[in-house]
Amino acid sequence: MKYSKKFRVKPGSRVELDKIDPGYTAKHDSHLHAQPEIEAYSQTLRGLQYLLYAEGKRSLLICLQGRDAAGKDGTINHVLGAMNPQGCKVTGFKVPSKEEAAHDFLWRYHQHAPAKGQVAIFNRSHYEEVLVQRVHDMVPKSVWSKRFDRINDFEKMLHDNGTHILKFYLHIDAEEQLRRFKQRIDDPARHWKISEADYAERPFWDDYTKAFEDALSHCSTHHAPWFVIPSNHKWFRNLVISRIVCEQLEALDMQFPEPAVDIEDIKKKYHAIAAAEGLKT
Amino acid sequence: MKYSKKFRVKPGSRVELDKIDPGYTAKHDSHLHAQPEIEAYSQTLRGLQYLLYAEGKRSLLICLQGRDAAGKDGTINHVLGAMNPQGCKVTGFKVPSKEEAAHDFLWRYHQHAPAKGQVAIFNRSHYEEVLVQRVHDMVPKSVWSKRFDRINDFEKMLHDNGTHILKFYLHIDAEEQLRRFKQRIDDPARHWKISEADYAERPFWDDYTKAFEDALSHCSTHHAPWFVIPSNHKWFRNLVISRIVCEQLEALDMQFPEPAVDIEDIKKKYHAIAAAEGLKT
Repeated sequence: MKYSKKFRVKPGSRVELDKIDPGYTAKHDSHLHAQPEIEAYSQTLRGLQYLLYAEGKRSLLICLQGRDAAGKDGTINHVLGAMNPQGCKVTGFKVPSKEEAAHDFLWRYHQHAPAKGQVAIFNRSHYEEVLVQRVHDMVPKSVWSKRFDRINDFEKMLHDNGTHILKFYLHIDAEEQLRRFKQRIDDPARHWKISEADYAERPFWDDYTKAFEDALSHCSTHHAPWFVIPSNHKWFRNLVISRIVCEQLEALDMQFPEPAVDIEDIKKKYHAIAAAEGLKT
Repeated sequence: MKYSKKFRVKPGSRVELDKIDPGYTAKHDSHLHAQPEIEAYSQTLRGLQYLLYAEGKRSLLICLQGRDAAGKDGTINHVLGAMNPQGCKVTGFKVPSKEEAAHDFLWRYHQHAPAKGQVAIFNRSHYEEVLVQRVHDMVPKSVWSKRFDRINDFEKMLHDNGTHILKFYLHIDAEEQLRRFKQRIDDPARHWKISEADYAERPFWDDYTKAFEDALSHCSTHHAPWFVIPSNHKWFRNLVISRIVCEQLEALDMQFPEPAVDIEDIKKKYHAIAAAEGLKT
């Protein structure tokens, strides 16, 4: 079965995260077992990105969401980092600036939507507006509850303009998050990365679960699906995401464009220059 | 000798491109011979980029210039593509938009200068304003000739704000350019990339040489040096650029920052959560 189907949130269905095993690894039993496959998909991904760029008709938007330490940065570093940086732009969304906060909730995200031929990766995304904003009561329910429809409309508009949208929820459990916090404490080279915020969000675990479930359920559409990625094992997360991105790009059936010039005419120009300059051809 | 020194345009000196061998390969006699070294530098580069990001005090701006087919795209793909796309933004500068053209000549470049901790790669750069604009008489000499000083001032300002600037001129000769044009003609998969513009610029070869020589001579400064990279051999170009970028980043003597939190305090928080939730620690 295609991973695009296996891990997709079926449009219209209700997600229950507790029923999805974050430690799932399919038929793979170890990192070593999966690594050759991950590397092969990285190569394929790079080729497909080149084709997307060459064709110049479609674009790709990848949204990464997940709790602290779920592996958003690692996914970019180990999977999406295979892409050519010329044609791939990563945007991380943190606390909005004063100017951003003075606009509608989609304004700052829209500016970073990918141009034709390009890939945009959102490290956190417009879904923060129905996650952190909801959990911490930054806007009332009457406001955030309307955002699901507005997000679907926004994504439909991008889709109609040729943007292929893939949204990944990196699914870890509470024990795995704590294990990762511990690893940061145990490794002095990573102390600079530790933030109070990691621990401040932890008591809201169940509130986030509910908020994620609502976002995944309301906003997994045919034109912009959500995927729930079992992410307790980093290598399996990498394998699944690289495979889904490849499957989805392959399904676009992209083609190299026709030459913009008359090749016979160019050949003549080439020979004329070579002859005039006395160069071997 | 450090490659940073060997290939640098000495500030105040006069560049004569005809006296620099574009086919130079130092002690290396083949791609196979250099490849392990290139790969080692790629790894080092990635580590140094991470340190730049972690430290968050300095930034890196890499400008790539060269004639058509000199290898700007290839350098990004094969050398600078080793970097994590989160923290590295490539901007290609083509014909300016109407809004861009309505501003001063540095306006559109300034917007893409790297933030602290970030790498910006310019595929073509503000030097186009003293290259194509000069060669095709798009502005009079009275205008472009003043730009060298303005560019030096601009780069000094960026440097004073912590931006480390490296500028690479990819040096190929006329025969090598024609050989690369021929390879594009001979490979149907690359026909879509062929542009009339490649051939239209060729008669201006000597004018460009003069324009490049002036730019390299006027604008190689201690704070923003130019490097002339022998680029007839793509693998040697890759080796030299990756080595120079590594040497220059190493010289910054970057350090991981001190933790932003009290680690003992964080440990207590960690154990309190683990105990409260009954998780193994």
